[in-house]
Amino acid sequence: MTFPTPMTGVVPPVCTPLTPDNEVDTASLTRLVDHLVAGGVDALFVLGSSSEAAYLPDRFRRTVVDTVVRHVAGQLPVLAGTIDMSTWRVLDHAEAAVAAGADALVATAPFYTRTHPAEIARHFRAIAGRTGVPVFAYDLPVSVHTKLDAELVLELAAEGVLAGLKDSSGDDGGLRRVVLEARNRADVTGFSVLTGSEVTADSALAMGADGVVPGLGNVDPEGYVRLYRYSRDGDRERARAEQERLCALFGMVRAGDPARMGGSSSALGAFKAALHLRGVIACPATAYPQIPLSADEVERVGKYLAAAGLS
Amino acid sequence: MTFPTPMTGVVPPVCTPLTPDNEVDTASLTRLVDHLVAGGVDALFVLGSSSEAAYLPDRFRRTVVDTVVRHVAGQLPVLAGTIDMSTWRVLDHAEAAVAAGADALVATAPFYTRTHPAEIARHFRAIAGRTGVPVFAYDLPVSVHTKLDAELVLELAAEGVLAGLKDSSGDDGGLRRVVLEARNRADVTGFSVLTGSEVTADSALAMGADGVVPGLGNVDPEGYVRLYRYSRDGDRERARAEQERLCALFGMVRAGDPARMGGSSSALGAFKAALHLRGVIACPATAYPQIPLSADEVERVGKYLAAAGLS
Amino acid sequence: MTFPTPMTGVVPPVCTPLTPDNEVDTASLTRLVDHLVAGGVDALFVLGSSSEAAYLPDRFRRTVVDTVVRHVAGQLPVLAGTIDMSTWRVLDHAEAAVAAGADALVATAPFYTRTHPAEIARHFRAIAGRTGVPVFAYDLPVSVHTKLDAELVLELAAEGVLAGLKDSSGDDGGLRRVVLEARNRADVTGFSVLTGSEVTADSALAMGADGVVPGLGNVDPEGYVRLYRYSRDGDRERARAEQERLCALFGMVRAGDPARMGGSSSALGAFKAALHLRGVIACPATAYPQIPLSADEVERVGKYLAAAGLS
Amino acid sequence: MTFPTPMTGVVPPVCTPLTPDNEVDTASLTRLVDHLVAGGVDALFVLGSSSEAAYLPDRFRRTVVDTVVRHVAGQLPVLAGTIDMSTWRVLDHAEAAVAAGADALVATAPFYTRTHPAEIARHFRAIAGRTGVPVFAYDLPVSVHTKLDAELVLELAAEGVLAGLKDSSGDDGGLRRVVLEARNRADVTGFSVLTGSEVTADSALAMGADGVVPGLGNVDPEGYVRLYRYSRDGDRERARAEQERLCALFGMVRAGDPARMGGSSSALGAFKAALHLRGVIACPATAYPQIPLSADEVERVGKYLAAAGLS
Repeated sequence: MTFPTPMTGVVPPVCTPLTPDNEVDTASLTRLVDHLVAGGVDALFVLGSSSEAAYLPDRFRRTVVDTVVRHVAGQLPVLAGTIDMSTWRVLDHAEAAVAAGADALVATAPFYTRTHPAEIARHFRAIAGRTGVPVFAYDLPVSVHTKLDAELVLELAAEGVLAGLKDSSGDDGGLRRVVLEARNRADVTGFSVLTGSEVTADSALAMGADGVVPGLGNVDPEGYVRLYRYSRDGDRERARAEQERLCALFGMVRAGDPARMGGSSSALGAFKAALHLRGVIACPATAYPQIPLSADEVERVGKYLAAAGLS
Repeated sequence: MTFPTPMTGVVPPVCTPLTPDNEVDTASLTRLVDHLVAGGVDALFVLGSSSEAAYLPDRFRRTVVDTVVRHVAGQLPVLAGTIDMSTWRVLDHAEAAVAAGADALVATAPFYTRTHPAEIARHFRAIAGRTGVPVFAYDLPVSVHTKLDAELVLELAAEGVLAGLKDSSGDDGGLRRVVLEARNRADVTGFSVLTGSEVTADSALAMGADGVVPGLGNVDPEGYVRLYRYSRDGDRERARAEQERLCALFGMVRAGDPARMGGSSSALGAFKAALHLRGVIACPATAYPQIPLSADEVERVGKYLAAAGLS
Repeated sequence: MTFPTPMTGVVPPVCTPLTPDNEVDTASLTRLVDHLVAGGVDALFVLGSSSEAAYLPDRFRRTVVDTVVRHVAGQLPVLAGTIDMSTWRVLDHAEAAVAAGADALVATAPFYTRTHPAEIARHFRAIAGRTGVPVFAYDLPVSVHTKLDAELVLELAAEGVLAGLKDSSGDDGGLRRVVLEARNRADVTGFSVLTGSEVTADSALAMGADGVVPGLGNVDPEGYVRLYRYSRDGDRERARAEQERLCALFGMVRAGDPARMGGSSSALGAFKAALHLRGVIACPATAYPQIPLSADEVERVGKYLAAAGLS
Repeated sequence: MTFPTPMTGVVPPVCTPLTPDNEVDTASLTRLVDHLVAGGVDALFVLGSSSEAAYLPDRFRRTVVDTVVRHVAGQLPVLAGTIDMSTWRVLDHAEAAVAAGADALVATAPFYTRTHPAEIARHFRAIAGRTGVPVFAYDLPVSVHTKLDAELVLELAAEGVLAGLKDSSGDDGGLRRVVLEARNRADVTGFSVLTGSEVTADSALAMGADGVVPGLGNVDPEGYVRLYRYSRDGDRERARAEQERLCALFGMVRAGDPARMGGSSSALGAFKAALHLRGVIACPATAYPQIPLSADEVERVGKYLAAAGLS
């Protein structure tokens, strides 16, 4: 398929359902894809942070891309994350994903290693140069411990290295700077800015972002699709009301007890519990070493669904 | 071989020589191993941070462990790093390393993912439980962005989960706390504390650390072996003098221009340049996306060698 | 005067003009106040971060509050910052400001000291309890190195300890959470959420924030007043256009060379250079040890003014 | 008195006793000074972090310097901290301390404000230039959120701006670099490197540090004086044994429950509880908003004293 330029709309980072035996549950994964497609999303992003990519062995990653690409069969673009520490390791993931049929790639700056802007630029240039598909930079300082610099992103956009930015930094002022400068530069065209925020999607779109990549979109794709369409059509009040409903639903990420588990266990556990409660996936298990939600915590997730009209 | 309990002595994190075509240079790697063994080291640590493990694709990692284990042929213990983001991915590396004959494993806490002490404990328990070889915790907050808590380390030592700690945190007060509390606890025996510091090895040993894992030990293994032996024999003044010579040599890690490259490019580039200048490895290339040292910067490395009596 | 509940509108953090001899330039300060009042702002915030409060000796701080309170003479509310490391020091500033006639206080969490949520709560309770005027929590993690927790802020709002939040964290998702939860809680009334962002003021207002505290509002108060009024009247498109003009103008904070100075020298230097170029203040000097802008850098500031129609 | 060049020996950061009514308890303060002098210390450091300087209003600070300078009456040098956010504020503290008779000053880099090495250099140059007494740089990244760069420190030493470094960074490799480079540079003379670590004092001295500034030295000055003398006389084994006893005693800083209070409340609360239990100060209160230790926690402090032979 021809990859849209710029990429726009709702692009959920697809959760990776697991079996109780800790394998990829491909049946649940295809059901989840159907649920998202039926919800009206514009593309799928597999192997992102909400997909637990950082927890998945390579063979799980390959199963995920294969399963989703085959099942989608060209109806929608499939973007694949290539989360790893440095260029050569990312290239291995990138080549596997492209071979399996992914339409575009999403890569972070190097992490774990000490890095430098010149090395980050080299990294993205190598990925784009070797794979020949559109590459999105993934800005996630909470994981990568580097914030992508706006000027560097724009320079790589102008060079044709980057097709877009997936901004999960939480810094909407920074996102806006990229949106406005990309619009004003003659040498940047077709560049797509996507926000990873579940809770400021309406404002990012109002600023000129092209799309949204919300983890919570797994649970309520229709909600984000409505939000996106209202925004696109200039109906800001309806977009805001939809966003506020989704903000309340997003409270589920705090279902897990912070004395007992990390934020990832709580948030990803809640998304999967919600998908399980909604009947989309067969088992809510998260990848090791995340701590499972307790029965009480799952019940709390159910209340968020009910309050948002999703039970 | 029977793995020493506790592990003691000099355990250099073996650099990974590359060819100009960006493959593992196994001939140089075996020459480097010979250089280290001839230098008198007590064990070898492959696939650590100084080995550029974070930069190496899985097949490179396998080549490294295979090559070193075969070449060493049981003369010395071989510890293998399993640097990756989370438990299942680490287990894949661990199983490959054990299958290839590694005698022990070195693993960090989860990174990239948001984590929690309870998840870190689960992580190490899974690794030790599944592999059946001694597991060392690798404390490297500059990369992992979590400092391992002394109490957690000691609890896992008491449980038999951890065989040792490789402390590269730079926090020698924290290292000392683990050393002293391990000594005082009846439920902790044979636990090995190794410092990753090139420049405070003498003081860590004086505090009671069992060994040293210095990246600079690639360049000057004899120096660290002398330092270790002086320390073990209580000759603190000679240990200090040797350490001071090595501190001066360590200045080479600042050979690279910080305006042009990150600290990893500079330090690992300097170690490899020094090994090349000393005739140990055929090519000083570092892994992508690190920036190569310039000719001037390499010349600066040569001056550090000369000043330390190593040219 | 009766302090508005909630505080709404445009509340610029008033710059502190200095003489070439490094004293407070009270004549320029009153001219700046006139410029802001003429621009239509709703209140004045003295001794905030953009006022260089962290650089000002106590007698400068007293001069600033005295000068502004007297000159404003009750036309507008005056909020005073009490920036200091811990409770007793903050109370000294608070008592001086209240004695001089400040209508409300703005305080950060403790900094420099290691702190804890229970200590932060104690801190704000002491300030509110001792001063009897409305207290705003100032969330500025880039300076304070602690992010105020939304639940703690809401609890202190419910207790009547906090009258509002000045959110300069850049985390608009977090700001929105406070706005929405404050709206939904019966025990929180009249609580004011103000954004410190120059570049997402329109979206913060669309989310339900009550007002804006933009450092750039010194340079272009009319712009932020228009932005606020458009937002209040639901004219989102005009608000966005005004905001985008202000975003471009905000580029001036990058006028200073980052190789030569820190971000504070560049940003505060640019605001003062712009006020000088616009004829509002007599001298663009910033407080020690900030580095002054060069003539070229000042010229760059002038171009931003011209491009925004302000020269 | 003539200030020693370099400053050497044991220089405890003197705790600031408070009355139950939250005033400086000058009677307890002079008793504490007597206790330290009787313990054999070489100088006194008032208004450091262990003195709760960040918590003390200016009038408390003046009372402390006055009381100690008068009481000491030239028997020992008195160094005074000038903890504040930026140059002019620090200069106010510095001038007050010098006027009250302090022999030397201790200053951090600017904090709260965003800063830059060029601004840090300007800051120290201004302090030294204006006060005419020896100035020590205080490296405390946990509070200041900047690590002082070794090259900058050495350059300022060579210029005569800095008389010494008080290194509380916990980075003993960095401390050693300053020690060794200062020794090797012809343009640096009489420069004093002091460690703020309670638990690696013996190794810092073995590396060539000139003295120690241990908060725990309030509780057990004799211990640190013995440690220093053994080190100075080359009796490393006795120094180590004394240090290990002090390491065990230092465990008291963890007496407070981390779920209930921050690290400062726990550590400074423990030092004061120990001084109270030892009969040196009348009241163990710490400054607001620190959380007091519970009776159980104080009992735990008592057990540490008993175990170290101090009850």
